[in-house]
Amino acid sequence: MTQWIAGKWVAGLGEPMQSLNPFSGEVIWQGQAATPEQVEQAVTCARQALVSWRKTGLADRQAIVEKFAELVKEHSEHIARTIAEETGKPLWESRTEAAAMVGKIAISLRAYHERTGERQKDIAGTAAVLRHRPIGVMAVFGPYNFPGHLPNGHIVPALISGNTVVFKPSELTPKVAAETMKLWQQAGLPEGVINMVQGARATGEALAGSKGIDGLLFTGSANTGHILHRQFAGQPGKMLALEMGGNNPMVISKAYGELDATVYTIIQSAFISAGQRCTCARRLYLPQGPEGDAILNCLVKATGQLKIDGPFAEPQPFMGPQISERAADGIIAAQANLVSLGGELLLEAKRGQGAVVTPAIIEVSQVADLPDEEYFGPLLQVVRYQDLPQAVAMANDTRYGLSAGLVSTDDAEWQYFIDHIRAGIVNRNRQLTGASGDAPFGGPGASGNLRPSAYYAADYCAYPMASMEGEQTELPAQLSPGVQL
Amino acid sequence: MTQWIAGKWVAGLGEPMQSLNPFSGEVIWQGQAATPEQVEQAVTCARQALVSWRKTGLADRQAIVEKFAELVKEHSEHIARTIAEETGKPLWESRTEAAAMVGKIAISLRAYHERTGERQKDIAGTAAVLRHRPIGVMAVFGPYNFPGHLPNGHIVPALISGNTVVFKPSELTPKVAAETMKLWQQAGLPEGVINMVQGARATGEALAGSKGIDGLLFTGSANTGHILHRQFAGQPGKMLALEMGGNNPMVISKAYGELDATVYTIIQSAFISAGQRCTCARRLYLPQGPEGDAILNCLVKATGQLKIDGPFAEPQPFMGPQISERAADGIIAAQANLVSLGGELLLEAKRGQGAVVTPAIIEVSQVADLPDEEYFGPLLQVVRYQDLPQAVAMANDTRYGLSAGLVSTDDAEWQYFIDHIRAGIVNRNRQLTGASGDAPFGGPGASGNLRPSAYYAADYCAYPMASMEGEQTELPAQLSPGVQL
Repeated sequence: MTQWIAGKWVAGLGEPMQSLNPFSGEVIWQGQAATPEQVEQAVTCARQALVSWRKTGLADRQAIVEKFAELVKEHSEHIARTIAEETGKPLWESRTEAAAMVGKIAISLRAYHERTGERQKDIAGTAAVLRHRPIGVMAVFGPYNFPGHLPNGHIVPALISGNTVVFKPSELTPKVAAETMKLWQQAGLPEGVINMVQGARATGEALAGSKGIDGLLFTGSANTGHILHRQFAGQPGKMLALEMGGNNPMVISKAYGELDATVYTIIQSAFISAGQRCTCARRLYLPQGPEGDAILNCLVKATGQLKIDGPFAEPQPFMGPQISERAADGIIAAQANLVSLGGELLLEAKRGQGAVVTPAIIEVSQVADLPDEEYFGPLLQVVRYQDLPQAVAMANDTRYGLSAGLVSTDDAEWQYFIDHIRAGIVNRNRQLTGASGDAPFGGPGASGNLRPSAYYAADYCAYPMASMEGEQTELPAQLSPGVQL
Repeated sequence: MTQWIAGKWVAGLGEPMQSLNPFSGEVIWQGQAATPEQVEQAVTCARQALVSWRKTGLADRQAIVEKFAELVKEHSEHIARTIAEETGKPLWESRTEAAAMVGKIAISLRAYHERTGERQKDIAGTAAVLRHRPIGVMAVFGPYNFPGHLPNGHIVPALISGNTVVFKPSELTPKVAAETMKLWQQAGLPEGVINMVQGARATGEALAGSKGIDGLLFTGSANTGHILHRQFAGQPGKMLALEMGGNNPMVISKAYGELDATVYTIIQSAFISAGQRCTCARRLYLPQGPEGDAILNCLVKATGQLKIDGPFAEPQPFMGPQISERAADGIIAAQANLVSLGGELLLEAKRGQGAVVTPAIIEVSQVADLPDEEYFGPLLQVVRYQDLPQAVAMANDTRYGLSAGLVSTDDAEWQYFIDHIRAGIVNRNRQLTGASGDAPFGGPGASGNLRPSAYYAADYCAYPMASMEGEQTELPAQLSPGVQL
């Protein structure tokens, strides 16, 4: 029973699917994908549920999402262990993801009221009332790297605003999705308000192509996001919100401050989650000369010492495997490609148990045409620069624009950086991978379609309905010129 | 000298163009369109100007837009007369448009701060700062019906946020655009911050297709808007904000209150601006029975008495001509089509001087498949209904969703209406054409791409940049598991 449709667990009728623990290779979930017909059925159920869900008062909708938060909290260890098992993320990190899922509810409620919600004022006997209305049936496409937190970041605001949802998790993380759905079920969400369909590309194509959806909220790869954007061409009334990747630069100034703390900040930026966060630093800009040399030496050494192991190992590792062996192979191939282009291996990525890849640090200052690709793993490219304007120009030389960072104790450098850098998450002396949950999230260029999520997710889950309201029609003291009744 | 590029007036090198007073037929403006090369030159200038304009502090940008507001106020009679001359709108109404242009500045500044702007809080020694950054070079496509106010509604928020602009006005209203640009010039806007290119389709295609634009803000027809949406497919990073049309329903309850006031409200909804507002009521739902009969009789009589004349006539008319003879012919053709489908003429539209069309009221209750088209003129379709749910279901039977209205003194009916109607502007006992300037504007479906404008225009003129900022990098008391420095 792998699909949750209209409040019932039903068997998928499509292709067989399995989910593996990427460290042990153990099968942790199996079932069959939803067929296109089952996807359509889920969309139909979501549409049927929409009428009453949107009419359910906000207080009642809020009570259910708050109940869900309680349940996630109560079952957080189970959720964290499921995330760890399915993604290979260390348990300590998976626990932070489960906590973020709980935190999302209060933040989303605040955002709902601040960004959307209702307000009223009187203008000369007419009430000017602003309400917001749900978009309708929302398809939610989740990624594998935060299989609990990131779909949750679309689903919770969508439900609060009165939308209904058809959720297609990543085919690499069906189990986390299923466990989460069970908590929604327990929270008492009316049947059909969320439906979940499992599957890979064919399932996704059926959902994205369904005439019955009013919007699609996507977090995933730039490649898939761009395909969706083309697929939605000529349908401006459908809400498409795309959160995609980045090729994120981190610039270290000569005035970097303390060495160990700086190296630690770089490691947290580049290698946390085994490099599988969309905000991870991919390109590190270090100053030419001894300051840069010192950082690089210390970074290569510390990175080489990072403990990598299975998610439940004790003591806990810093990072685990990639999501799949295929993904791991991709990082090794990217490394080989960069070397063939003239990159110099300072620390070589190697395959380990299961989908493990050890971190790579590659000096690419000599590569004339550095590919503008997101390598979604523990592969850090290093470029040496002469001065800050040059570093920022290189940092901006990407079609993406998700995150960027500067390490500098110099306020003037920071001012220059924020005046010139083009990105949505721009941190100073802090890891790039530490976005605030109650800030908007997203960036320009190929990183998304400027429908920022997180705190601004409320914006894409509702449209404004502006009213001028009077108790009765009125004849003004003076009619418009040329009117006679 | 018809194009304003890089702070200079230059001659267009493209096709000859003329603008006519649609009442008198007099040529009031002539010149040549911009060639695609000139459009590209304007985009290049806007990009060059972007660097310093975005770095110009908000206070300085604000001072310039406020100076512009002063100038529009000072020259409001000239602006109003130019609008009246070029669109044929009565002078009294053109004056309200000039006033709305002035009002836009204060509203846009408030919206900038509330919807975007900057905020900061401290989280355990890290400053969480939210800034907003301009999108870049914005193409603005203006419509002819409010040739001053509506482009202004895109341009002012875009400039406040630090974007630069290439403005292509409607080819039917080049003169109002040129007069407005002169005021921006006088306001001291740095060269290249706004550029204006005149022309019709070829000019628009060159601008929309330019690789140098970062976004396109459009108010105009659904047809053109959908073409643009297809043209932008696969370019999610470009901000496309579409405000298109509507096929707007107005529902009159049996409990309509006072007869004359209700008829007046219908006339103001359907026929103001000679039916050339995107919020105009196009479909009027009247109850079957004597209440509906009474309204219809009174409406037909009062509409037949509406004074129609040239924009400067004394006494002033209620409405003037259509924007062009072609548009006038279109209304007559739409009327003929509706009659051929089974519509019954209660008041027949007839051509008058220049582009004048007198108002039409057509009973279409018997038309089985009513075309879901926006007739952008004084053509009102009447449908008789049995009960409110039926009326609302018919009202919602449109791919558009811009405005809708209910006339009813019954609060329960109003609650039903706002719970079920699908539109962005939903008024009670007030004309549909009276949107509040400080509310968001726009609607779902084919009416736009859910980038609401007016008060929410700030949203599409900037993207958020969220920062976590520390004075220096820091080593936490406890490092992440598995890290050794």
